Amino acid sequence: MSVTKRVLASEVGEHVGREVTISGWLHRKRELKSVSFAIVRDRSGLAQAVFPGGMIDVPEETVVKVSGLVKASTQAPGGAELTEPVLTMLSGPAEPPPFDLYRPTVTATLPTVLDYAPTTLRHPLLSAGLRIAAASEAGFRAVMESRDFTEIHTPKIVGSATESGANVFAIDYFGKPAFLAQSPQFYKQAMVGVFERVYEVGPVFRAEPHDTARHLAQYTSLDAEFGFITDHFDVMAMLREAIAGMVDGVTARALPSVELLGVRLPKVPDEIPYLDFAEAQELIASMAGWDPRGEPDLSPADERWLCEWAEREHGSEFLFVPGFPTAKRPFYTHQDPARPGYTRSFDLLFRGLELVTGGQRLHDHADYLAALAARGADQAPYASYLQVFSHGMPPHGGFAIGLERWTARLTGAANLRQVTAFPRDLHRLAP
Amino acid sequence: MSVTKRVLASEVGEHVGREVTISGWLHRKRELKSVSFAIVRDRSGLAQAVFPGGMIDVPEETVVKVSGLVKASTQAPGGAELTEPVLTMLSGPAEPPPFDLYRPTVTATLPTVLDYAPTTLRHPLLSAGLRIAAASEAGFRAVMESRDFTEIHTPKIVGSATESGANVFAIDYFGKPAFLAQSPQFYKQAMVGVFERVYEVGPVFRAEPHDTARHLAQYTSLDAEFGFITDHFDVMAMLREAIAGMVDGVTARALPSVELLGVRLPKVPDEIPYLDFAEAQELIASMAGWDPRGEPDLSPADERWLCEWAEREHGSEFLFVPGFPTAKRPFYTHQDPARPGYTRSFDLLFRGLELVTGGQRLHDHADYLAALAARGADQAPYASYLQVFSHGMPPHGGFAIGLERWTARLTGAANLRQVTAFPRDLHRLAP
Repeated sequence: MSVTKRVLASEVGEHVGREVTISGWLHRKRELKSVSFAIVRDRSGLAQAVFPGGMIDVPEETVVKVSGLVKASTQAPGGAELTEPVLTMLSGPAEPPPFDLYRPTVTATLPTVLDYAPTTLRHPLLSAGLRIAAASEAGFRAVMESRDFTEIHTPKIVGSATESGANVFAIDYFGKPAFLAQSPQFYKQAMVGVFERVYEVGPVFRAEPHDTARHLAQYTSLDAEFGFITDHFDVMAMLREAIAGMVDGVTARALPSVELLGVRLPKVPDEIPYLDFAEAQELIASMAGWDPRGEPDLSPADERWLCEWAEREHGSEFLFVPGFPTAKRPFYTHQDPARPGYTRSFDLLFRGLELVTGGQRLHDHADYLAALAARGADQAPYASYLQVFSHGMPPHGGFAIGLERWTARLTGAANLRQVTAFPRDLHRLAP
Repeated sequence: MSVTKRVLASEVGEHVGREVTISGWLHRKRELKSVSFAIVRDRSGLAQAVFPGGMIDVPEETVVKVSGLVKASTQAPGGAELTEPVLTMLSGPAEPPPFDLYRPTVTATLPTVLDYAPTTLRHPLLSAGLRIAAASEAGFRAVMESRDFTEIHTPKIVGSATESGANVFAIDYFGKPAFLAQSPQFYKQAMVGVFERVYEVGPVFRAEPHDTARHLAQYTSLDAEFGFITDHFDVMAMLREAIAGMVDGVTARALPSVELLGVRLPKVPDEIPYLDFAEAQELIASMAGWDPRGEPDLSPADERWLCEWAEREHGSEFLFVPGFPTAKRPFYTHQDPARPGYTRSFDLLFRGLELVTGGQRLHDHADYLAALAARGADQAPYASYLQVFSHGMPPHGGFAIGLERWTARLTGAANLRQVTAFPRDLHRLAP
């Protein structure tokens, strides 16, 4: 048996005329009359070994090592194949997966894919979304680090369900009631007081009682928050950098997955166009055939129409809508001093849907007290949060990007579960 | 008032002879008879403005903007200071912090520091550890990415408390019992089947009922797992790369914090020395004055002695101890085929204490069934985990580095809470 060092499947073509060993999963075997092919899958892709004949007595998905002499072959993946191969099993013979992983399309239903995720995610079409997610995150981090943001990790267990009040998971915390954090919002704001610019990548939890394609009980949030801004336009400019970095990350690290899925990457304009919320409603009222004025939020139809408009008028798949009404925004949102009832917050729309929400936050202690009073909310549950603002906080703002939402939107996945390794929802707690 | 663009405190010295604006917290004011100084702190450090005289009528920690003409001054931080300054408040006047943040030492007790963390962490000595943690994590990621590991995010809510069975937090999951994940162990192993090499940085949760300096209810785990290894020595080699990368990350990104804390960074040897567990016990028995043989684990005294030995014999602050007995290792640990009762797992010791645990895992389905049977454990709770190994898994292994533990060990912090922004423990659920 060969003791040559392992090469990756993608490297086989560089070794024509030499003996190499490849290792991976027996992706597919094709047994013809006079010759058989074993196609091996590893993290880099596929490589083929050709056997003189007979059966390959190993089930697909078994982990194998194959040594052989590399010969050029125009019909093999990568333009070369292993000949005179010796195949060794590195695992026991694999049980058949729930569907044939070597077929070019996924023939199983989403529930089957999810029930058997550790196996089904091996299908290149199903892992591609996760590769694109990882590459997006790397791109996000690169931008944050280059802009002098400090990475933080904040508590996922909190003492009060303050941020939205609803849809929280309750925990038994050493006999005391506690909750899973719905976002790092309060902590990232606090840490602006320490580092000025902070970001966090971590899980957030929503006890979403509806079983929809757009919600998960746990998702990965890319959070950023920074101080010494003029207003929310500074936040929008930084978000534009982050999104551009995510596209760059995907381009640099996950192009094979992009091509496999047929993803069209968006061009992020140097300046993403924006349309004020109230103006957007006016425009829709005058041009779209319905009248959204008076509504405190954009409807799905509004979002679709505005994206078409931005594409048409500005050639942009992205559109900022700043100036949302106060009614639908959390209490910490900075008011627009010039327009009572409106805020310095925004949505970023992308391909017909809301992608990110962000804005400037309040920073003065007195403004927080007034905002809570205006909503008739008790100060007590917010005590440790309010404390932050009595000790000097700069004008600041930020945003949160849902990694799964971004990845789904980019890849065209209709359901967030298609781009989440082991999703959690109303019905799903395993695997 | 000046409309010049903001420069950072650390950049003031580059602008001698020019008008600049700095923004930050009023770190300290010094009011002398004929002249007053305002020292401003921002994310880059300190800068000084000199006022012709009189009081600075703004409390410390208030957020301010100061514009002025930069003049060289040997006594100012960075060798320059702002003269003829105009100071504007960007926040309301700050309440006094629980202790003077401008003093070179921290005069408050740890409980006070933690109770008022959003404010106290502004003290440069207290934020330095968090900067070192962030830099370490960046270094870890750089190594993982360069070695072709894919970043993953796995569920923090799990359906059964299988990994250790004890010390789990219970959740009400839509009316069903669930638990917070104690580690991503099962999921990272499953994802080796998809990507071969994976890593995750995320929170893990332990309902630790003891109030010690070494335990937190939530900490950040740097997890790696990879396939196609020969044995645990491949895992040790990869861990060595990760640790070296973390030191490099700190060197590249957090040197001012290292200097501020007086941290001595370790040299990571090209090959970290190792001493087999049984041999280590023999050595201790023959040289140290006590006899640990027969114990299934290293005692704190053993760990200290072995680190002194490694320093003396090999000039290394790191020592691997491979070959731990089966008794103290989890059921998924790979046995040493040559030595019944011993495993292919290891500890990494650093400066007198265990820093990381890792090893090769079982990869054959039949071995898992045998391992559970040998412990008298029921298979049912492990069903979705065991499923992974029936579909072809390569020999694999990994490790998990506790970010807070690493940072504490590096900085000499006696308590993990000193290097955690908002620690969670038996008594602490806020801020």
